[in-house]
Amino acid sequence: MQRDTTAMRLAKISRMKKLLLIALSCATPISSISAQSGGEIARAYREAHEVEILRNFAELLSYPNRARDLDDITRAAEYIRDELLAVGVDSELLQLEDVPPIVYGELNVPGATRTLGIYVHYDGQAVDPSNWTHPPFEPTLYSAPIPEGGRQLPMPEPGEAVDPTWRLYARSAGDDKAPIAAILPVLKAFQEGNVQSTSNLIFFFDGEEEAGSRNLPRYMETFKDRLDPIDIWLFFDGPAHPSGRPQITFGVRGSMGMEVTVYGAARNLHSGHYGNWAPDTGVILSRLLVSMKDEAGRVLVDGWYDTAEPIGEEERAALAAMPAWDEQLKRELGIVRSEGEPESLPERLMVPALNIRGITSGNTGALARNVIPNTAVAALGIRLVKGNDPAHLRQLIVDHIQRQGFHVVS
Amino acid sequence: MQRDTTAMRLAKISRMKKLLLIALSCATPISSISAQSGGEIARAYREAHEVEILRNFAELLSYPNRARDLDDITRAAEYIRDELLAVGVDSELLQLEDVPPIVYGELNVPGATRTLGIYVHYDGQAVDPSNWTHPPFEPTLYSAPIPEGGRQLPMPEPGEAVDPTWRLYARSAGDDKAPIAAILPVLKAFQEGNVQSTSNLIFFFDGEEEAGSRNLPRYMETFKDRLDPIDIWLFFDGPAHPSGRPQITFGVRGSMGMEVTVYGAARNLHSGHYGNWAPDTGVILSRLLVSMKDEAGRVLVDGWYDTAEPIGEEERAALAAMPAWDEQLKRELGIVRSEGEPESLPERLMVPALNIRGITSGNTGALARNVIPNTAVAALGIRLVKGNDPAHLRQLIVDHIQRQGFHVVS
Repeated sequence: MQRDTTAMRLAKISRMKKLLLIALSCATPISSISAQSGGEIARAYREAHEVEILRNFAELLSYPNRARDLDDITRAAEYIRDELLAVGVDSELLQLEDVPPIVYGELNVPGATRTLGIYVHYDGQAVDPSNWTHPPFEPTLYSAPIPEGGRQLPMPEPGEAVDPTWRLYARSAGDDKAPIAAILPVLKAFQEGNVQSTSNLIFFFDGEEEAGSRNLPRYMETFKDRLDPIDIWLFFDGPAHPSGRPQITFGVRGSMGMEVTVYGAARNLHSGHYGNWAPDTGVILSRLLVSMKDEAGRVLVDGWYDTAEPIGEEERAALAAMPAWDEQLKRELGIVRSEGEPESLPERLMVPALNIRGITSGNTGALARNVIPNTAVAALGIRLVKGNDPAHLRQLIVDHIQRQGFHVVS
Repeated sequence: MQRDTTAMRLAKISRMKKLLLIALSCATPISSISAQSGGEIARAYREAHEVEILRNFAELLSYPNRARDLDDITRAAEYIRDELLAVGVDSELLQLEDVPPIVYGELNVPGATRTLGIYVHYDGQAVDPSNWTHPPFEPTLYSAPIPEGGRQLPMPEPGEAVDPTWRLYARSAGDDKAPIAAILPVLKAFQEGNVQSTSNLIFFFDGEEEAGSRNLPRYMETFKDRLDPIDIWLFFDGPAHPSGRPQITFGVRGSMGMEVTVYGAARNLHSGHYGNWAPDTGVILSRLLVSMKDEAGRVLVDGWYDTAEPIGEEERAALAAMPAWDEQLKRELGIVRSEGEPESLPERLMVPALNIRGITSGNTGALARNVIPNTAVAALGIRLVKGNDPAHLRQLIVDHIQRQGFHVVS
């Protein structure tokens, strides 16, 4: 598996954005009734079963998991359900008609007073096989990352050593089957070692996250009774800290999109016949976008920062204690200057963001024509923090656009 | 045929932009040796042969003429060559290998001291038949424009009257087979009426204008000897004046494209994880574009207007004598404010233009994703006037971009 997926992955945005997200280290049960700690038992199990864990992971990865291929995704769900059953989880498929099922499971603990919900998604992004070195659902082992000169290896036989520099290539090897492959052996270790959690666990594995989790709200309503006991959701789908150190994220920003279309003439106009006279929608839209953000990256929409709840002493201390990683990250990403310098990336995530997700007007490249396009469209991406209300931020932007002299039609 | 194509159409931009373009009224021969004037003879011929002219036009339109379909375009060229031969033009196909031929023709006049070159293109834009009410190469007659409630009519029989409100729908009914359909009956009338022009005429009909006239330079070099005698080119491919009055254009602006790409991070970044920190390429590009043009439409690139040759008294008088059409045009096009007000459209065409032909960054609409795109691309459309040098204007823009703090890589 690839480096950034060997740990549980956290904090990926989805339609579940309102859920509280925290991290759970997979090898640290909250309580243990054995002589060893849960972590020690899990580690010992992993060391004794590395080849088996790797082979099981490869088997999991061999199940095609594109959400729209209903037969495939159902087979993948059934496999995961059976694996959960095998490690003592009371598991079943929740099934709405003609959409990918939810793999659901409960591990109830007598006397537990808290219930943790564990979200993972078992579907993967669409695949274009022509972009793959190996078929995406034929997991292929390499001695190291391919760009670093790794060479293909056979899967190891039981008893052989597993080298941590190895990489397993397949669709969803990281995002997001890795947490499933990590959870199962831990539960197996606890089952064999008689370790018991102090919390009830509810597993809820989404089958169409990469397709926008379109049916997730319906699933959550239909099976509300199953989810009601959950006190805290743990969300296993997000990036590792770029330093490679484990990261616990206690919340993520909300997400909202807006689209702004500037209209010019009733139709595209020929630039030879009308250029210098027809409204130049690209420049008009540009002027509007520039009015929204200054060169330092500060959003200029009136009231933009007013409703963001200020962070407290504890958060400030946590931010200060984080590794200073911006300069390395900027080198990796080829960035000379980040927005909001000298504030660091983690600090910048504490305030609402306004970004341009896309601009479309006329054509560029080989398709560029001698026209003055009669529309220019910008997709705004808005990130909300605690205290922000989506409708309020939206209204602030509409007010701003009107103050720039535009008539807003809808 | 549609209204804007009943007159010769002028001034359409093409790669022949350096040619001098003037208008020729198709029914006005320069000299006549008959008792009637050439115009009178042509008009009388038209009145006596309206149904025949309409039917011949429909036959011309029935030849598929997409430049890339070489068999089709060659058949269309052969048909037009034969029609020219039939009205006394010494016509042939000029043929480079594997590209659409030029329909070439000469009508030499003993004693003539001037030679006019007549450019038309017989190819048409690509067709998506699903966008057509009738098949694009099955010309269909209507009693009036379809949006105004026209109903379909059978083609008239010889002797029936032709109503000028009729409309003939087909690909290239206007752009640009209409001039061919207008020239042929005039030449026929002159042939029958023994009218002789005072100028030699050279016909040069392009077969891939809508595909960018890619082989036109090669044709003009290869057949340089045929074209050398031409004193003035007449260009029959351009818009009528919006008032419907005939318009003679003595020149058109040149055309040049540039593409500007703003680069951000090495890859697209997730807006939840990096928004407020990653360079916002859409805004950065917008700031650059806004720096190039002020709100009144004046180009702010240093030196932009310096090399444009000022127009003289005669041109100023001609501009002043044109019908004031801006307000009507703005109503038709749904424009509240034009660039450069209160200057009129014809005045604005006298100076070099800088327009945004297109902007592409990330995605908008249903494809918009939660990313900060790592590139934003603008296609600039530049229109040149007399005195402008393309390389010089390009350099002015590059200098401007560098002055905004950008590093220009190519």
